[in-house]
Amino acid sequence: MRNFDLSLMYVTDDRITDDVAFFAMLEAALKGGATIIQLREKERDTLSFYQRAMRTKERCALYDIPLIINDRLDIALAVDADGVHIGQQDLPAGVTRKLLGKDKIIGLSVSNRLQAQEANALDVDYIGISPIFATSTKREDLELPLGMEGLRAIRKIYTKAITSIGGVHAGNVAEIMRNGSDGIAVVSAISKADDPELATQQLKEIICQTGFKT
Amino acid sequence: MRNFDLSLMYVTDDRITDDVAFFAMLEAALKGGATIIQLREKERDTLSFYQRAMRTKERCALYDIPLIINDRLDIALAVDADGVHIGQQDLPAGVTRKLLGKDKIIGLSVSNRLQAQEANALDVDYIGISPIFATSTKREDLELPLGMEGLRAIRKIYTKAITSIGGVHAGNVAEIMRNGSDGIAVVSAISKADDPELATQQLKEIICQTGFKT
Repeated sequence: MRNFDLSLMYVTDDRITDDVAFFAMLEAALKGGATIIQLREKERDTLSFYQRAMRTKERCALYDIPLIINDRLDIALAVDADGVHIGQQDLPAGVTRKLLGKDKIIGLSVSNRLQAQEANALDVDYIGISPIFATSTKREDLELPLGMEGLRAIRKIYTKAITSIGGVHAGNVAEIMRNGSDGIAVVSAISKADDPELATQQLKEIICQTGFKT
Repeated sequence: MRNFDLSLMYVTDDRITDDVAFFAMLEAALKGGATIIQLREKERDTLSFYQRAMRTKERCALYDIPLIINDRLDIALAVDADGVHIGQQDLPAGVTRKLLGKDKIIGLSVSNRLQAQEANALDVDYIGISPIFATSTKREDLELPLGMEGLRAIRKIYTKAITSIGGVHAGNVAEIMRNGSDGIAVVSAISKADDPELATQQLKEIICQTGFKT
């Protein structure tokens, strides 16, 4: 697996259907200092997902920032992305690794301690614990927020990198990092900000202050 | 590309959500003489699509019948299916071929003469013209039925194999075959039949009578 910096992941907002607005937002996240981009599209047909992925990859490459694709291994392979982020209802991690190869990043969503325990036996590179706080972004997320107690418990269980997603904003990043997360993943904290580039910079600054690399 | 018999394709019905009923229907189509199976799932999450594909592949293998997957190249790769069927809004044919390899089957949906013309330049193994007649199965199909005139026109344009889908039933199969189609593809003509196995046999018999191989 290639080295990557999990500290500040911008998960693209598929509510931004307009391409001009979508890529302006991506650019703001990249300029502001996002360390990894996850392209997440739940409503699009395969062709337009692929086209968005191609263009997203071009932009990420200019900043030398890795791009991972949510769920769709076919899209990841088609654009030669740096990896995929899979959920518990996506292709199994072993199948994903076999098709993607050992040099790519695989992240896995985890919603409870049992899944974190199971993830130790899987060939994934990080887990994303979700939701860390309550969120309205991911409509299908019915799990209870894990909170700091859940994060600490999972930190004790899971041996590799952890990021945290769900209701993350500038006001709770420091707490998340101090409780054992290696990074944060955000949608709305950037995409709904008045100034997305500034919001990204501020998140990054807080992460730096907690002593983790960015 | 491997040899395959396009004459009688059963496209699985994703309205059959119950697995017992779904696999009973598949078995009926295989026993009745379907020559190729297309697994089409539009509503499922990736994991349950994959699980259904794994089990569908096992059943098809017992009958030595090829399985192709609608749209999702990741699923096709994950279960080592015999190919994929792509639409105009799926991954481009060239990208699909590159990822799938030269030994697999690629089919492409075509809804008009221009697309048929373009398909001649693509590395696909057959086109599925859709809809040949009006149909209620594929909700997103907004194109006008091509009818026999459209089929004949496309037969003159397109140089490789053609199958026809949409509103196909025992009463119009002979006409479709006589007008230049190399096969038919059906959902409801099998899945909504009182006796799906018998319905498949009857479709196959009509195809045989038109002089095409089955």
